[in-house]
Amino acid sequence: MSGLIGATHAHPTRQNRHSHHFRPRQRRGLRGYSGPAIAEWLQKALSVPYELDARVIPDGFDSVRDTLIDMADKANCCLILTTGGTGPAPRDLTPEATLAAAHREMPGFGELMRARSLEQTPTAILSRQTAAHRGACLIVNLPGSPRSIDLCLKAVFPAIPYCVELIGGAWIDTDPEFVKTVRPSKK
Amino acid sequence: MSGLIGATHAHPTRQNRHSHHFRPRQRRGLRGYSGPAIAEWLQKALSVPYELDARVIPDGFDSVRDTLIDMADKANCCLILTTGGTGPAPRDLTPEATLAAAHREMPGFGELMRARSLEQTPTAILSRQTAAHRGACLIVNLPGSPRSIDLCLKAVFPAIPYCVELIGGAWIDTDPEFVKTVRPSKK
Amino acid sequence: MSGLIGATHAHPTRQNRHSHHFRPRQRRGLRGYSGPAIAEWLQKALSVPYELDARVIPDGFDSVRDTLIDMADKANCCLILTTGGTGPAPRDLTPEATLAAAHREMPGFGELMRARSLEQTPTAILSRQTAAHRGACLIVNLPGSPRSIDLCLKAVFPAIPYCVELIGGAWIDTDPEFVKTVRPSKK
Repeated sequence: MSGLIGATHAHPTRQNRHSHHFRPRQRRGLRGYSGPAIAEWLQKALSVPYELDARVIPDGFDSVRDTLIDMADKANCCLILTTGGTGPAPRDLTPEATLAAAHREMPGFGELMRARSLEQTPTAILSRQTAAHRGACLIVNLPGSPRSIDLCLKAVFPAIPYCVELIGGAWIDTDPEFVKTVRPSKK
Repeated sequence: MSGLIGATHAHPTRQNRHSHHFRPRQRRGLRGYSGPAIAEWLQKALSVPYELDARVIPDGFDSVRDTLIDMADKANCCLILTTGGTGPAPRDLTPEATLAAAHREMPGFGELMRARSLEQTPTAILSRQTAAHRGACLIVNLPGSPRSIDLCLKAVFPAIPYCVELIGGAWIDTDPEFVKTVRPSKK
Repeated sequence: MSGLIGATHAHPTRQNRHSHHFRPRQRRGLRGYSGPAIAEWLQKALSVPYELDARVIPDGFDSVRDTLIDMADKANCCLILTTGGTGPAPRDLTPEATLAAAHREMPGFGELMRARSLEQTPTAILSRQTAAHRGACLIVNLPGSPRSIDLCLKAVFPAIPYCVELIGGAWIDTDPEFVKTVRPSKK
């Protein structure tokens, strides 16, 4: 089973981008998965209102790809965090499904998450996790274990709000006490 | 000329995975190549019986791809280490041939080997070495020089036995005095 | 707008590779872009005569790809440094255009430039910059800001002269006081 968590937005324009009201919805179907750990992490990190759309689906290429497309296009998520399915086992197809659903890969995410994970365990090189975007929705592959998830999110999240802004998604901001958003100063 | 060294296994089941008898075969055809250095390294590293299948073939896309496929499918190798052919020169086609023979790439191997090699020389960024698997066979591209080979193997080998296990290959273990195998503890 | 700077050579043979006279041409069309910063950097770095071919073109896939092909094939550049267009915004298509114009990617360049840039800012992971070669011409994607350009060039330039040599381009050498060229000693 693969877990996907999406943070939904309502196509805010630059004018009303702070006004979209994202109420937390009931998280269900995440029994035994790292979804709750990710949801908790987002709750600590995000300083903007948002709505969660958490789904647990069977492993596989089609299932993950189709769910990503649905969450990006129909549910209007501007950020989807997947968990699990990034290893070398035959059932691990989340990176393939991510690239199939997305328009462009951003290899720096995977490189950094693997580099940080390597400080914990040499098997980090087995992860094929990556990030890519489908239109205004950024998709980031996270590992399966909660400890690794925290490590990876801490590493890449400072760049996520600016990334989502650049691809035309919602305005995201974070609690700098927990994780600091960085936006390059415009020249 | 490209060198390829495969460690063969006999499709061991979980029951008999320690019983497959891999006798060292005569290594021939490796005159002047780094094959012997790799073979020696494996002899120090592996604590399980294994059989070597060492081949030296002409550089080129078809030659390397077809040999990889033959070693994986017919010779039942669960690990193939290539040497050479990863640079930017026109004759260097080992990474291309590897990806053509394989089902899925694992980019973390190349990233780590380049990062480690960079500590020795800035030209490490010219290496296009990668790793990928064809079914139950892991293929890892190593550089040509013995010193770099040791550096690269020391970096990635701790994760190789677990990787080969995950893709359904043989049970591999190593002498922890020489290189320590890491397998994540199951939850 | 995207900037491209090519260092031209005249297909020097091994015999006359030091004799090609590359006079600096007038640099024009680089108003407000990082082209001048790159040109200055090259002037400090290169200890061989060379000729610059600097072009500013509209952003886009076709425009960048076609200009790269023209600079490599018609203008005989052996090194093209692009600036800008590597981010996740929809108009950023320089890496795609680079790969479309090139024969083979060298992922180590992008990995190292992102790793170095990460020491400055977490948004470095958003860069999709890479390097690739089209025949005897090496193409390297640089970021848009002058400070990042210096950082990236300092990181990868030590390997560039040897790389251009391997792909059959001109003999390049650098002022070791500014940036030291590394060529592995032949065995």
